[in-house]
Parts: sequence; structure tokens; C-alpha cells
Amino acid sequence: MSTRRGEFELIGELFAPLATDPAALGLRDDAAVLPATTDELVVAKDALVQGVHFLATDPPASVAQKALRVNLSDLAAMGARPVGYLLALVRPPGIDDAWLEGFAAGLAADQARFGLTLLGGDTVKTPGPLVVSLTILGRVAPGTALRRAGARPGDDVWVSGTLGDAALGLHVLQGGWAPADEEAMAYLVERYRRPEPRLALGQALHGLASACQDVSDGLVQDLGHIAWNSGVAIRVEAPALPSSPAAADAPDALIQALSGGDDYELVFTAPKDARFRLQALSSEVPLTRIGRVEPGEGVTVFDADGQPMTLTKRGWSHGWT
Amino acid sequence: MSTRRGEFELIGELFAPLATDPAALGLRDDAAVLPATTDELVVAKDALVQGVHFLATDPPASVAQKALRVNLSDLAAMGARPVGYLLALVRPPGIDDAWLEGFAAGLAADQARFGLTLLGGDTVKTPGPLVVSLTILGRVAPGTALRRAGARPGDDVWVSGTLGDAALGLHVLQGGWAPADEEAMAYLVERYRRPEPRLALGQALHGLASACQDVSDGLVQDLGHIAWNSGVAIRVEAPALPSSPAAADAPDALIQALSGGDDYELVFTAPKDARFRLQALSSEVPLTRIGRVEPGEGVTVFDADGQPMTLTKRGWSHGWT
Repeated sequence: MSTRRGEFELIGELFAPLATDPAALGLRDDAAVLPATTDELVVAKDALVQGVHFLATDPPASVAQKALRVNLSDLAAMGARPVGYLLALVRPPGIDDAWLEGFAAGLAADQARFGLTLLGGDTVKTPGPLVVSLTILGRVAPGTALRRAGARPGDDVWVSGTLGDAALGLHVLQGGWAPADEEAMAYLVERYRRPEPRLALGQALHGLASACQDVSDGLVQDLGHIAWNSGVAIRVEAPALPSSPAAADAPDALIQALSGGDDYELVFTAPKDARFRLQALSSEVPLTRIGRVEPGEGVTVFDADGQPMTLTKRGWSHGWT
Repeated sequence: MSTRRGEFELIGELFAPLATDPAALGLRDDAAVLPATTDELVVAKDALVQGVHFLATDPPASVAQKALRVNLSDLAAMGARPVGYLLALVRPPGIDDAWLEGFAAGLAADQARFGLTLLGGDTVKTPGPLVVSLTILGRVAPGTALRRAGARPGDDVWVSGTLGDAALGLHVLQGGWAPADEEAMAYLVERYRRPEPRLALGQALHGLASACQDVSDGLVQDLGHIAWNSGVAIRVEAPALPSSPAAADAPDALIQALSGGDDYELVFTAPKDARFRLQALSSEVPLTRIGRVEPGEGVTVFDADGQPMTLTKRGWSHGWT
């Protein structure tokens, strides 16, 4: 379609059908109104910029889903369950109705999958790149939110899933490298475009994890936040890092596992006596023990010979160089 | 200063000091965690784009304050009191440390004035224009939020403050017109740059207003939402529209009062028997009766002779043409 919807048509036709919770007031008021509950409210906000956090060639549905999922990942890291989200869509002239329909369809699919609805937001025009700014709301029972502080010397360090896939997927999309196998290529690209927020895991970690956060900027950098907030040192065993079969023949798989961003796995610490229960949880999402908490400060990575490694690139920070 | 802060320095040095509520967790976790209360949660999100919603020449403090205040205005329109906000700052290379310090200082001043704190957010880089995306959280006692639906035939239509000032202020800044008086010029520019959210008024309208919203896109367009949501017609008397002395000699004061945006006054309907109490409220913020609710649909403006007026421009929608 070559026609362009104005703001009110866009909201009425594409976004109002996503606002099924009565709290959204059909997107027809100045704000959403959520009922009081006995739970605490968990709220986070992450913005994505085209060309920085996603590519102009990414399908609109996956752009929508990435925006939603990186925010859901923040809820997962706190052990919260999703309630709803608000969306500011800052759209350049090149964004047409077909793109917007794909974007809304991506949101609809993920709303059904993750059990949340649109609560409100804003659409504005820009002469610059597309920006998707999303605010997510979730709930936790009082006092149960997972935090970055709380790791104690002697705790194990665990991570979910595999590391480095998303950074390799971006590398593939940018033409920097291609795995021999087409399925591997598709897998890595999917990991970049549509991360899997570990919501069920986050909620299952109540009473098990002593500290938790998601891997967004890169494992070493993100573990650095746990170390700093907890006042401890963290030792990571490089040979233990979980990587996918698709990443096996990547030239820089280890560096991507250590400092590639965008995996949105959960990295957490837990006392040794939680090992049995965590291994039981592994039947749902693979969990791997990758290191331990020690007295001191900072994050140090050790190789197979027990020697500390020096990283040339500590973390991968979107567009910050 | 010519140095540039990275994301973590920016958050730690400029934004963490604004996050004084324990719910913000010092901006050191993946999300904020707000305690349960018996009140309903009111949440809204409005994004501002440089060159669309504010000018490149606007001082950074006023950009911050406009972003905060247009969101506070949404709370005012719902009769809610502010709790906190999340901020996504999407910043181009030209935004230096001095600008960011001014921006943070503007937030600090308004936090103290309006009684809320920063709860979280995100800073990302963009090759495009500056975008400030803000999400505001407020509270209302259950069932008391003001809505756009609820106006009934026979109700009066009221508006706070004066209309058209902000649109005239923009006109002045763009060099389209200048009032003879320098004080008038400064007043109009201030109205454009730093609107006054009518928070106390919104909270005072509980039990008085039958429908309410803020004037952001222009009086006629915004009243159209009340008319549509309430299933009524609204009659506006043009001679009754309140305008400021500063706008008195503007060439198009009436059209700006009817369709200029950005005033962020409250427009609301109320039964006739609320007149006495509303006039008493006028000692704080001037309130003017500008029309009435009738059976039917749509918004019609009448001139001094009781003749319906035809508007060439129905509302002023940021950058939407």
C-alpha cells in the first residue's frame, strides 16, 4: 500500500487491537491505569536505534520483537513476570504502512507468546533513523526481585544457553563471516534478531540465585556489574563457556562468547548447595557452571592452563567506541 | 569541557544522583522495583524529537523540562499525582558534556518542584536527531482517574489558563512574528519551552469533572477526543476563549487558541452544579467556561453572533501534515 496512515489511524488500526488489557483504556485516554496489586512493580526501559541496535534490512516483525524481548530480558533478570508495555515509535518518512503492519504483527505474536499487552505510548515523526523506545512493566512478590548485589565468595557462576551467537549473527549479516552450514547461519541470525528472554528461568531462580543479570553488553562486562555491586571478584573459566554448534567454526568464537553482546542469556551466581536444583532446571534451559565468586574485585578469565587471559576488547557496547 | 562521557560515566555521574528513590536501586540493576500500594498506577509515555517537538536552539534544561512536563501533563489530565519517571536519551554526536549537564540540571530542578524522581532508563547513540523518550508513573485512588469519556449533555466545558501562547511562542522563535513588548515575547517563548502541568488542578477535579484531557494538539482536536469518547457534541464559544495579554496583538490569536498545540492546559467538562466549586478553584489557576456539551457528535465553534465557524486548520499536530 502506498498510503500513509496519520497518527490517529496508526494508533486506532494497528496499535489499539494490541491493547486488550482494560488497563490500556483502549489507548483512548491520556494514560493507562493499572489496578493495585499486592505485588511489587518492576519497570525497565530500553531504546533501539536503527543502524545501532538493529539493521535497516531486519524484517519489521523482528525489529518489534527484539525491542520487546530485550526489555522482557530485563524482567527476566529481575525474576519478574511480564504485565504490559508502552511503546514510543519514532518513525522516519521511509517507514510505510506495510512496514508498520509487519511491526504490529510481530508485537501481536510476541504478546501472545509472552503473555503481556500494549498499555500505551506515542508515535512521532523524525527526519532521522527509526527509534523504538519501549518501557516494560512486570510484577514480583514483595522482596523477591533478583538483584546484581548478593554474590558471595564461594558461590558458583552460571549462565543459561550459549554465548556469542548474537554477535556472530550480526557478523554474518554484516558480511564479515559465514559459517559453512546454512542452518547454522540462519540460527545465528535468528539469535541476533530475536533473542529469547529467559523469563521462566528468572522466575525459577527465586531462592536459588544470589545475584543475577542478563547478558546484553557482553559476559565479562555484565559480570563486572555483579562483581562491583556485590563487592566480590569473579573468576571465569574460558574452557567452560557454553557455545552453540553453529558457532563452532567461527574464527573468534571465544572472544564473542566473552565480550559479544546481545545474547540476552541470564548470568547468575548461586551457592554450591543450589547445584542439584539448578541441574534439575537445566532440562528446560541448559545451564552451565562457568566460574566462581572469590574475595576481591573485578572479573578475570582463565584459560585451560589456569593462566589469566588478557582481553583486547572488554565487552561489546552498542555503538560506543 | 571537550571530553565525552561514555554510557556508564553518564549514568553514574549525571543520572544516578537524580535517582534518589530507593525504588530506582541506584540505577545499578536491570529494572526499578516499586513497592505495592493500594493506589492504582497511572502510566504514560511521550517522546520528543529535536526539530519536531523542540528546537535545536532551546536550552538543554528546558528540553529536559519540556520532556518531563508534557508527560506530567498526562498525569494531570488523569488527576494523578507523580511518582517517578524513566528516561531514554537517544543522543547524536553533537551532544557534549556541557549540554548533558544542563539537561540533568533541568531534570533536577523539576524533580524538586513536582515531587518525583528518576527511576531508570537508557542512553543510546544515534546518527540522527536527539530524541528524549520519557515514561511517567503516577498514582490515583482506585476508581478516581479522570477520563475522556463521561461528558453529558448539559455539562459545561472549562479550560484552565490561557490558550494559544505556546504556538505563538514557537512562531516567535521561528521568526514568524514578534510582539512589540519584550516581556510578552519572553512569556510566550517560556510557554512554548516550559509548559506548566496542571497537576494540582487535575487532582482537585476528582468528583467535579465528568471528562478531562490536556490540550496538547490543539483545543478543537483535543475536545474532539472528549466528544468522541463520551458520545456527545461539544459547542465552543469563540469569544469566551481565554487568551493572555501577551497574545493580544498576535495576528492569528484566535486560530492559535483554537488549534495551536503545546499549551498543556486542562480542558474538561463538568455539570452545572459544579460551577460554584470550580469558580472557587479559579483562585489558584484561572478557569474559564468556554462552551457546553450537547447531544450529537463533533466539536463546533461559534462566533460572537452565534454563527458556526469554519476552521481551515483543525488542530496543530507536531510535524504531521
